[in-house]
Amino acid sequence: MPLYDEILEQPEVLSGLLNSQQKNIEEIVKSVGKPKGIFIAARGTSDNAARYAKYVWGSYNQIPVALAAPSLFSIYNKPPNLSGMLVVGISQSGESPDLLSVIKEANRQGCATLAITNHKDSPLAKQSSYLIDIQAGSELSVAATKSYSAQLGVIAMLSAAWNNHEGQWNEIRGVPELMSQALEVESQIEKFAPRYRYMDQCIVLGRGYNYATAYEWSLKLKELAYVVAQPYSSADFQHGPIALVSNGFPVFAIAPQGEIFADMANLLKRLKQEHQADLFLISDNQAVLELADCPLLLPGGIPEWLTPIIGILPAQLFSYHLTLVKRIDPDAPRGLTKITRTN
Amino acid sequence: MPLYDEILEQPEVLSGLLNSQQKNIEEIVKSVGKPKGIFIAARGTSDNAARYAKYVWGSYNQIPVALAAPSLFSIYNKPPNLSGMLVVGISQSGESPDLLSVIKEANRQGCATLAITNHKDSPLAKQSSYLIDIQAGSELSVAATKSYSAQLGVIAMLSAAWNNHEGQWNEIRGVPELMSQALEVESQIEKFAPRYRYMDQCIVLGRGYNYATAYEWSLKLKELAYVVAQPYSSADFQHGPIALVSNGFPVFAIAPQGEIFADMANLLKRLKQEHQADLFLISDNQAVLELADCPLLLPGGIPEWLTPIIGILPAQLFSYHLTLVKRIDPDAPRGLTKITRTN
Repeated sequence: MPLYDEILEQPEVLSGLLNSQQKNIEEIVKSVGKPKGIFIAARGTSDNAARYAKYVWGSYNQIPVALAAPSLFSIYNKPPNLSGMLVVGISQSGESPDLLSVIKEANRQGCATLAITNHKDSPLAKQSSYLIDIQAGSELSVAATKSYSAQLGVIAMLSAAWNNHEGQWNEIRGVPELMSQALEVESQIEKFAPRYRYMDQCIVLGRGYNYATAYEWSLKLKELAYVVAQPYSSADFQHGPIALVSNGFPVFAIAPQGEIFADMANLLKRLKQEHQADLFLISDNQAVLELADCPLLLPGGIPEWLTPIIGILPAQLFSYHLTLVKRIDPDAPRGLTKITRTN
Repeated sequence: MPLYDEILEQPEVLSGLLNSQQKNIEEIVKSVGKPKGIFIAARGTSDNAARYAKYVWGSYNQIPVALAAPSLFSIYNKPPNLSGMLVVGISQSGESPDLLSVIKEANRQGCATLAITNHKDSPLAKQSSYLIDIQAGSELSVAATKSYSAQLGVIAMLSAAWNNHEGQWNEIRGVPELMSQALEVESQIEKFAPRYRYMDQCIVLGRGYNYATAYEWSLKLKELAYVVAQPYSSADFQHGPIALVSNGFPVFAIAPQGEIFADMANLLKRLKQEHQADLFLISDNQAVLELADCPLLLPGGIPEWLTPIIGILPAQLFSYHLTLVKRIDPDAPRGLTKITRTN
């Protein structure tokens, strides 16, 4: 079962990454300096990692982050002017031609380019001026899990390195142990999964740092369990899509404590009380978990900015257990191959 | 029926906008100059207009565009450094506090700020250093239609103004007439709508300039007809979500001729032939329409970059007709109000 094994490997992968890559990351940051803007090209799961980067590098490093529209490079051949930006390609395989076209153009324009990939011999790694190998080990499952948390780890480490901030580094060092604790809810998840046997659609909510979690959780539900799962920030959700939620409509959410908590908790209350939504909730706050039909408790003491790296684990485990209940082979999702080459 | 009337008013709104705002837009552009980067804050439908801006300003004006993460300003209070950027707020009402917090911070940092709104006395308009009034007239329907196409029109006009390009201006001047022609497919749409009476989920595809159309079409299906509709670019779709598509799964797509066409047409063929998807297709290419279970022909001669302004009209009309078939009141969507104030 590659998928299941790879989910469980994550604490170890993160721990290895911290030990082996801190120096490389600090050297890259020293050489590149602090860019005035970062431009990221990524697809699928890696694009969700890019969403996390937008919040972490924006808030902790004051760097504005733009996500690339790769077709401007690969199809229209009318790229924007990227001068002064650090251009980052994030990809497990490092193979997709549309991402390569962004990196090549950035090189042509004289920008520093950085590959964050699991394949140090891939075209993406070779074309980029800097390389961070996420060292997740070979990921056999088509659905990415450990490569995602490793990408988030690298993004957090880059943030600590740009700030040269020992406090951030210390917080990151706590991640592997918190990941192990987060995996302990598996028996709970097994108990909840059958309830969703016939669910074919749902909403997934997260905001701030966990906007990325909403997207990645939703992608796992789609590609593994064939559920039409729609990710939203709690704010965007109220600008239209909340109309979908009628009595019993399934809403999945991650709402850890921190600055965004009050906003999420208010929306969850409204969804429960006014819309009678069915709530599946991941949080480290006991009070908000009481709103949920299916509550999952996160370990205490996770700094808010690192909650996405830990909070995605129970979400991945749930998606996996849902495939078992639905008798879907989680290691052979319909219509997918491990390396997707889009132009 | 405000919604229906507002859909039909759009050619007239665009025509009025062109006549009244060209000079103002040219003056703003003269005063602001060509920025080295643009940072946009928007929510809901206006955020879909921002997606269009990312492609048009990126490809026609070589300006990199970043979409804001408003919570960094309004909740975390840790905004990125925006120096040298033009900061644009797009909002029909001009009321949402999270957008205002982005504009206020941009003013504080000394950036030029521009409001694109339908309410010239709104807080957003008053706080911004420049104002473009989209002059769509009062929009009574909760679901935005004419304010969206007017926002796209303004984005196209800004592009022409930055390039001072008479060819682009001429192409824009053709839009109102092409919009009128695009509305002529209504009888066809009425015929197709009952087929979707019991659809509760679907995928909506568009790429390049029409990535915005996929998002906006999908938002209308959600807020008006309560369909869990998921927007994707044809590229992102192949990095995971394609697993959802089994025999008969409904896929909506916009695939106008132009540089992106071959890519979209290949995916649509694959969805039809390998996945037996049910296809609802908007295009100006007869050959690709033959793949569709429900084909809608766009008028000929639309320049690719302007197809989103015209192509959204049949999509809006379809969403409206689906509410009639489902006996939903299109002017009172569940859980929504016209002005959404999120933090």
